[in-house]
Amino acid sequence: MLELTDFFPIWDQLTTAQQKRLLDTVRPQSVNAGATIHNGSMDCTGLLLIQSGQLRAFITSPDGREITIYRLLDRDICLFSASCMIQSLQFDITVEAEKNTQFLRIPSDVYKQIMEESAVLANYTNQLMASRFSDVMWLVEQIMWKSFDQRLASFLLEEAALENTLTLKITHEAIANHLGTAREVVTRMLHYFQAEGMVKLTRGTIEIIDQVSLSRFEDVEK
Amino acid sequence: MLELTDFFPIWDQLTTAQQKRLLDTVRPQSVNAGATIHNGSMDCTGLLLIQSGQLRAFITSPDGREITIYRLLDRDICLFSASCMIQSLQFDITVEAEKNTQFLRIPSDVYKQIMEESAVLANYTNQLMASRFSDVMWLVEQIMWKSFDQRLASFLLEEAALENTLTLKITHEAIANHLGTAREVVTRMLHYFQAEGMVKLTRGTIEIIDQVSLSRFEDVEK
Repeated sequence: MLELTDFFPIWDQLTTAQQKRLLDTVRPQSVNAGATIHNGSMDCTGLLLIQSGQLRAFITSPDGREITIYRLLDRDICLFSASCMIQSLQFDITVEAEKNTQFLRIPSDVYKQIMEESAVLANYTNQLMASRFSDVMWLVEQIMWKSFDQRLASFLLEEAALENTLTLKITHEAIANHLGTAREVVTRMLHYFQAEGMVKLTRGTIEIIDQVSLSRFEDVEK
Repeated sequence: MLELTDFFPIWDQLTTAQQKRLLDTVRPQSVNAGATIHNGSMDCTGLLLIQSGQLRAFITSPDGREITIYRLLDRDICLFSASCMIQSLQFDITVEAEKNTQFLRIPSDVYKQIMEESAVLANYTNQLMASRFSDVMWLVEQIMWKSFDQRLASFLLEEAALENTLTLKITHEAIANHLGTAREVVTRMLHYFQAEGMVKLTRGTIEIIDQVSLSRFEDVEK
């Protein structure tokens, strides 16, 4: 199991007192798939160090549509669950467990205090934010320059890689919530993929039967 | 004219040596409207402190379409022109002057060095990045949840506020490059706005004649 120190390549550059404060206050926690771990109206949850499992961060439209902003796997750090630490972050993000997830939680006030005295930790946090920033810029490029069929093809291949199987157990509704669209749009495109022989749809599953065509599809420019 | 210290509310918390290093290396610079100040392939330009003028940061699609990510006005700091300081930033952004612009430039290596020793400066930089992050999240929400007519209405009202006039001198092409679409799409929607009595189009200008309807338009949900 991953430990606190595994998440901080800069651990040795913290003072003994800082290390002790982190070690004394960090708490293991686990949540079931489907649990909401953080949202705009919740208290500042803290910094989450993912030991195992999978989280997704998403935003919601005024009428309830969702789009996934990024996903976090083991070894990742969820920074925006501690967004209260950073005043200038002016947006609401929801973080939800996609799988049963185990993580270590560092209280926001403890982390913030150390960040204020340690340039090393502040700069490391900067790098974490820059990674998430890059994820969001990637998303903007996807939304702007890719057509929906390409984004769907990419998503199916990403899921297959994450789940390590070509038979995906995922609803059309869940895919729509990842990609920021309506269920019917997903269903329509999946039927087109099926007609083209790239997937096979059965109740509750999507089987990828032509990975090569699907990845070729993904590369075409809009 | 704005001075170096005006850009750093945390100035007094830097050491005298750090202040001196910044004062010794900062250089005033000015560029004409239209100049490219930074792009992915250029050297790391440095941190730019905008004294007057207007910059826009945008990304470009493989086939040359553009979309504005955010704009910077006087008192703003352009951080991504010093993106080499932050390894985890994995995207290319272009920064271009929209108006004749005067700024102070701090060399990236100087800024980085001080950031590595000063928790105060590192945390301040964090806040800068968080502000830009919030801009991008706002953009994602606009692209995802707003229809194009609403985004165009918002853009025209934003321009009118920035230029302090209801008669905008801007080409349909330039608007398309802000909003990430094709010129024809902009032209078509502007003609619709004109038919609805909200704007009046003449060669090279767009006159806003019904601000109220345009702002009402902007608020409707998709």
